[in-house]
Amino acid sequence: MFKRHPLNPLITTHSFNPSRPDFEIVGTFNAGATTYNGEVLLLVRVAERPVQTDPDVVLCPYLEDDGELILKPFSRADERYDTSDSRLVVDRHTGATLLTSISHIRLARSQDGVHFQGEHQPWLSPTPPYENFGAEDARVTQIDDIYYVNYSAVSAHGISTALASTTDFKTANRLGIIFPPANRDMTLFPQRINGQYVAYHRPMPSGFGRLNIWIATSPDLVHWGEHQIVMQASNDGWDSGRIGGGAPPVWTEKGWLSIYHAADHQNRYCLGAFLTPLDEPGRIIAHSPKPILTPEAPYETNGFFSNVVFTCGSILQGDLLRVYYGASDQVMALAEASVNDVLASLEPVS
Amino acid sequence: MFKRHPLNPLITTHSFNPSRPDFEIVGTFNAGATTYNGEVLLLVRVAERPVQTDPDVVLCPYLEDDGELILKPFSRADERYDTSDSRLVVDRHTGATLLTSISHIRLARSQDGVHFQGEHQPWLSPTPPYENFGAEDARVTQIDDIYYVNYSAVSAHGISTALASTTDFKTANRLGIIFPPANRDMTLFPQRINGQYVAYHRPMPSGFGRLNIWIATSPDLVHWGEHQIVMQASNDGWDSGRIGGGAPPVWTEKGWLSIYHAADHQNRYCLGAFLTPLDEPGRIIAHSPKPILTPEAPYETNGFFSNVVFTCGSILQGDLLRVYYGASDQVMALAEASVNDVLASLEPVS
Repeated sequence: MFKRHPLNPLITTHSFNPSRPDFEIVGTFNAGATTYNGEVLLLVRVAERPVQTDPDVVLCPYLEDDGELILKPFSRADERYDTSDSRLVVDRHTGATLLTSISHIRLARSQDGVHFQGEHQPWLSPTPPYENFGAEDARVTQIDDIYYVNYSAVSAHGISTALASTTDFKTANRLGIIFPPANRDMTLFPQRINGQYVAYHRPMPSGFGRLNIWIATSPDLVHWGEHQIVMQASNDGWDSGRIGGGAPPVWTEKGWLSIYHAADHQNRYCLGAFLTPLDEPGRIIAHSPKPILTPEAPYETNGFFSNVVFTCGSILQGDLLRVYYGASDQVMALAEASVNDVLASLEPVS
Repeated sequence: MFKRHPLNPLITTHSFNPSRPDFEIVGTFNAGATTYNGEVLLLVRVAERPVQTDPDVVLCPYLEDDGELILKPFSRADERYDTSDSRLVVDRHTGATLLTSISHIRLARSQDGVHFQGEHQPWLSPTPPYENFGAEDARVTQIDDIYYVNYSAVSAHGISTALASTTDFKTANRLGIIFPPANRDMTLFPQRINGQYVAYHRPMPSGFGRLNIWIATSPDLVHWGEHQIVMQASNDGWDSGRIGGGAPPVWTEKGWLSIYHAADHQNRYCLGAFLTPLDEPGRIIAHSPKPILTPEAPYETNGFFSNVVFTCGSILQGDLLRVYYGASDQVMALAEASVNDVLASLEPVS
């Protein structure tokens, strides 16, 4: 049903310049998508790390609370720290963790939705005290004339969902933490429903609880409540490890169509789809029993974190649903389908 | 500074009758406190378990989503399940967990704040789908003529913070999940500040992040936002494991006084205190460098879960601050101090 674009991957680590001369880009992925002034805009997560000059030392980028970005060196020979995972450095005594990369949000623009031009400067740079490890996985939703961008704010305080707004894609107006840790994968509906703003989100419980999709409402986009479970991970199969929101819901005559992600216990990330009534966004009436996209192409099965397809945004043009997705936590790709074919493929949920 | 009441513990497992003839009460603790119609009311967490008739079988109470309370038997000889922790049964394959007890909220009434009469029926019974494992740790805050009761909703979906309201302490009007999992230890301020309702809460991050006290605001008590860190666990000592809200903040001329709980890495729970300006509840200006109450009395050092003092409510009568607290997750006790002595003992925070 979904066809990968022949020019995939559309965006790679070479599509942008690093934000600092001593940094290198390791990933350009998990981009929010929207149209603005006749262009397709992707809000790309750009993950960078310090250029490593000494193979015996790991340099961790860290944003201090005063706003200074410092590079903390850790000797691989120092037994106080575990440097075996290339993504992190862990203090063996306290468990405190630093990341080896830091992400910001960068714009890429396109006339045709296929050929993208990366901007030279970050659009949203991580800011203390809730983004000291980075700003990740932006999703964008247009409501009236305002574009709302939610993203993961990652710091030693946890992974939270933060919100910003823009009308020009030049400045970002930060609206703060709207879902406290641990929470990510928020997808905001493009209109009020029954008088309220509505979003899916994905709490990450500790102790009891699994990684499921919840819904919440808001009178003002800043304050959220009426939290309820919408969809649960299954007991086995492709969606047994975790599920979470993907692209913000798309309006169709049949109802709200959501493309979401699901992973199994081997951390293989696929995409699925579900449908809710237009006036009942918390009630799933149809879903995809099998994934609608699985990691198969080389850029999906082999990368920074392999076997991942993960969407943060789609664009509907007539009958054409264009799903932009991150592949193996490294590059951006595009898969396209007829939205009516997608809707027809869904199976009713009793 | 704080003096334990000579009649402690004021409430024990014998203060109430079980809610069912086949249940026994294992804990009466962590009670919210308020005054109503000239009486002191405690909203006690009553933990019950099925009377165990066969020593080789563990019976787990579980509320089905259809509302039926069933008793699931697990043979201690069945190697599929880990029954070594008396509080839980864990499926060794899936990690799924059931509790061996289930909690509800019960009222106890007193004329003098010391001699309490337990009610015969639950005031708030756990209700599916977010309380299948129980309703725990109620805290009550009076705002105008309405009493708001927040509590921990515990189910396989995680530990969430739920809100209810009452005007008569007969019926409870449920307002749903206001902080999604994992979250507990909410303490609601007794008045709007700068036009907004305000509460502390305690997210439990998974992965990054520690167990710290956050603040949030709300226009309507149902929708919450503007989440910010207020106080962090320390790196070592009595408050290095976790901290969380205790009694709802008390108005004093010097500012909002909060009694909170803190535990070290050995899960020894103490009480501390901090102060904020009346118009800036997110900014701590003074705090207790040492605990104001530590587990020392026999009922605090030895019980269902030993070495715990944990408050969910206090009552200020003139200069007398009465802190009601759960001791060793089993009984309710009272400690009293001059509020001016407590305020004078706090050290300024720069």
